[in-house]
Amino acid sequence: MTAQLSVQKLAETRRATLDEALDAIRTRAYWSPHPEHPKAYGETGPADGLAAFEALRGGRFELGQPGTDGWTGAETSPYGPALGIEYPHADVEVLLPAMRAGMRAWREAGPETRALVCLEILARISARTHEFAHAVMHTSGQAFVMALQAGGANAQDRGLEAVAYAYAEQTRTPAAASWSKPQGKRDPLEMRKTFTAVPRGIALLVGCNTFPTWNGYPGLFASLATGNPVLVKPHPRAVLPLAMTVRVAREVLAEAGFDANLVALAVDRPGEGLAKVLALRPEVRIIDYTGSTAFGDWLEEHARQAQVYTEKAGVNTVVVDSTDDYRGMLGNLAFSLSLYSGQMCTTPQNLLIPRDGIETDAGHKTYDEVVADIAGAVDKLLGDDARASALLGALVNPDVKARLEAAAELGEVALASREVVHPEFPDAVVRTPLIVKADGSHKDGQSADEVPYLAECFGPVSFAVAVDSTDDAVELLRRTVREKGAMTVGAYTTSADVEAAVEEVCLEESAQLSLNLTGGVYVNQTAAFSDFHGSGGNPAANAALCDAAFVANRFRTVEVRRPV
Amino acid sequence: MTAQLSVQKLAETRRATLDEALDAIRTRAYWSPHPEHPKAYGETGPADGLAAFEALRGGRFELGQPGTDGWTGAETSPYGPALGIEYPHADVEVLLPAMRAGMRAWREAGPETRALVCLEILARISARTHEFAHAVMHTSGQAFVMALQAGGANAQDRGLEAVAYAYAEQTRTPAAASWSKPQGKRDPLEMRKTFTAVPRGIALLVGCNTFPTWNGYPGLFASLATGNPVLVKPHPRAVLPLAMTVRVAREVLAEAGFDANLVALAVDRPGEGLAKVLALRPEVRIIDYTGSTAFGDWLEEHARQAQVYTEKAGVNTVVVDSTDDYRGMLGNLAFSLSLYSGQMCTTPQNLLIPRDGIETDAGHKTYDEVVADIAGAVDKLLGDDARASALLGALVNPDVKARLEAAAELGEVALASREVVHPEFPDAVVRTPLIVKADGSHKDGQSADEVPYLAECFGPVSFAVAVDSTDDAVELLRRTVREKGAMTVGAYTTSADVEAAVEEVCLEESAQLSLNLTGGVYVNQTAAFSDFHGSGGNPAANAALCDAAFVANRFRTVEVRRPV
Repeated sequence: MTAQLSVQKLAETRRATLDEALDAIRTRAYWSPHPEHPKAYGETGPADGLAAFEALRGGRFELGQPGTDGWTGAETSPYGPALGIEYPHADVEVLLPAMRAGMRAWREAGPETRALVCLEILARISARTHEFAHAVMHTSGQAFVMALQAGGANAQDRGLEAVAYAYAEQTRTPAAASWSKPQGKRDPLEMRKTFTAVPRGIALLVGCNTFPTWNGYPGLFASLATGNPVLVKPHPRAVLPLAMTVRVAREVLAEAGFDANLVALAVDRPGEGLAKVLALRPEVRIIDYTGSTAFGDWLEEHARQAQVYTEKAGVNTVVVDSTDDYRGMLGNLAFSLSLYSGQMCTTPQNLLIPRDGIETDAGHKTYDEVVADIAGAVDKLLGDDARASALLGALVNPDVKARLEAAAELGEVALASREVVHPEFPDAVVRTPLIVKADGSHKDGQSADEVPYLAECFGPVSFAVAVDSTDDAVELLRRTVREKGAMTVGAYTTSADVEAAVEEVCLEESAQLSLNLTGGVYVNQTAAFSDFHGSGGNPAANAALCDAAFVANRFRTVEVRRPV
Repeated sequence: MTAQLSVQKLAETRRATLDEALDAIRTRAYWSPHPEHPKAYGETGPADGLAAFEALRGGRFELGQPGTDGWTGAETSPYGPALGIEYPHADVEVLLPAMRAGMRAWREAGPETRALVCLEILARISARTHEFAHAVMHTSGQAFVMALQAGGANAQDRGLEAVAYAYAEQTRTPAAASWSKPQGKRDPLEMRKTFTAVPRGIALLVGCNTFPTWNGYPGLFASLATGNPVLVKPHPRAVLPLAMTVRVAREVLAEAGFDANLVALAVDRPGEGLAKVLALRPEVRIIDYTGSTAFGDWLEEHARQAQVYTEKAGVNTVVVDSTDDYRGMLGNLAFSLSLYSGQMCTTPQNLLIPRDGIETDAGHKTYDEVVADIAGAVDKLLGDDARASALLGALVNPDVKARLEAAAELGEVALASREVVHPEFPDAVVRTPLIVKADGSHKDGQSADEVPYLAECFGPVSFAVAVDSTDDAVELLRRTVREKGAMTVGAYTTSADVEAAVEEVCLEESAQLSLNLTGGVYVNQTAAFSDFHGSGGNPAANAALCDAAFVANRFRTVEVRRPV
């Protein structure tokens, strides 16, 4: 094998990064090798990235995959223009066996080489972050800078984190061991044992519309690093960023002497329902999915031959009890509600505010004042259309727009959503957040289905829920997490008792909690290597990004023992 | 809290053992703190153990559990006598909430204290190994020495191993971290984060008849050490060893200042089907099960609210290609087939032998010679009734006896099963292994259901399967593991090519392989801390004892972050 990329060369260039990542997941201190600043990618980086993206438009995205039986694709940017890109459509009867062909060599390469190859893939993606940013922007509707950060650098971080976990997990058991059991006066029993991490089979990644890379990379890289081929089935509206990822992965695999078909793309024809077909194939042994609860539940119930990792809907809550930085709280919440038009699985939906108001450093504030002040902070943040556009991005699809419009009927509107004209893309559907007032009085007699704010209303919609007391807020938080799940919980309080009560609910119901955020960290943002994304312990997701449980069952350890 | 057992005292007495266990799972060298020799338990240990066991017979087994609404139990020893012990029957509507009451304190104790308490439980069980051995013997039918080793020392090893994995997994993420993200010329973003391992909820252990402790302890201790209360639902024929375990656990928990109800017992009334009821309770979030494929599949399909760990049926294969120690091979196989009357999930069932015979150090041996020599080795091993009884133990229940009798009709009998008279317990049903000849010619056209040896025939039944070639044996091995699962695979060969081919099948189909065992290590025995029991990657089991995946999803990590 005369691979262009030798293991030695990969070790020289990438092993130090792997070690840093391994150290970061142990200490959980801040670390990232992927710059968030657009200017960090070289003088020509921005122009090159844009040009590369533009060059892809209106063409066929060749991957050289076996079993290509046609072309498909109809992405339209949430900013207006159709992308006009066609992707190979796969005959899965040909593609799936072809993906298995390279498994043995990939398994035999071992955990370190697999990790280094994955890091090389990520490094090449990182070098093209501007190009990926345009691809993410024009499929998800994220604003450009967010697409570059969340869809670029931070997604790469999450992928690298998964590689580090996969490597750590596979190397916890030694590759070989000698075993000598004393037998009293007789000779000891002596065995030589080998332990090999073996893949489960083909891993299916079912991508989402809003965060194709950020939500896709953890599963993709966790599966690949543990020896499994990965079939990427993107959301039909967000194919390009994952198609580009697949292309880079195939290039690196081939250069390193492995079968490029270890990573492949499968794009739906309109109405084909390919995810359901693939999910039930016996070759598919791992599935990663981000999206609706309905399909996530379907996967968990029906794809019994596979390990299924799902991130589904949830209802994120912020308990507003008191604060010693009222202005900071308002600004922080306004930003969280506005970022990417609330189209994050981590965006707060329900703000639980005592009916009698709250104590703050700016004096007592009534419920109405708090709601009006949050609304005012959002208005101020988004007062300028250009600035607003750079924060809001575009609504990702017509469903979100329809949901936003319908939500205005759900109660008294505290802050109306307004149309924003995007300075560059006049066809973009850009909307400011809607805040609806809601009654949070004891709802024990009502099923969650009867309470509008207890359903996920994905998009720029939040509810200012008037509760009878902070105690009631804490109980409503508990019910919400237990019945509906939550990716995030926030709370503002100056009371040690309230803080302890909220913390206890989060510990008991398994939800990730951010307390008293008033500065530049937002409840809807988590940082790889330090923050867990979701807990895997409430209905919003059955896995956390990223922990040992996310990788430990993607491979098995086969022992061979021989007498010495 | 004035606990009799302080954390400090536990640390002094048990921390060193935990550290040794942590080291053992890393190196996978031989290690055990639990002696296998009956004389290792003090001069009066044997007599005390027997007396303690006898004192339990014919009485009520008090546990002081809440919600006891009656008494139940009808165990009869496979050696003849009825045990006459009654156990509390639980009103689960009372017991389950009571089990949750102590969760918070148990969670707050943290991973180290939980591990130390678990080690104290195991140490007290270890001190009473003789008593447990009688309990295991008279419920499982294991011979006394095996009950003492497998049901005592080795089961305690597996429990300790699970505690070590649980501790390691929970402490991989630090309890707290500082996070500081540079912001160019601005002040860095600074956060203080805490990470807490939180339990999932009540863990249900559904015990089995043959290895109540060995198969029960890994799940029990993995769940308890990760903070979950454990409800033990023993097999109705093998209650006592687990009831004794529950009693010790409750004593230690109470002495250490925790709620004794963190571990409780639930025993069926006849025909009650309690396992199905408990498995679907919303409070039950983890299930460990060993037993039939039918019920294991039912649990996996229906207990969707829980993490389900199952060990089900499998068909274990030994490929007999060639050997340079024919006598050693015969003796090793004879022992493996005889031990506990083949009632181990790891006992070989199918011996694949080329129709044209094999090469050995004793010359070429035809298929018929190999089969006759294996039969002869079994006969020789079991020629004396007293020695045979000490190896065979008793048939665990009438189902095994019926299956054995029916199996003699499945083909030409190479070795008939004979009745053995137990020297001490004349009512014991003791039988030597049956070996049936079978045709292993290409069966591609036949479904596995049509081939008798492709179904698990649990008990002292094995098939000497004549295959057309070693290549065919390897393919039959692959098919067997893939379609039916296997806890163990064995092979005898002097050919590097055959060895590589068998190894490759085991790597691809995820099965644990023992090669050329001719001495005192047997394919059906695995040692904790070094050998994996099952792979979790084929249909015989969805989990391996013990690895990170077995513990990592029994808890979740909740993060709380605050600005500095």
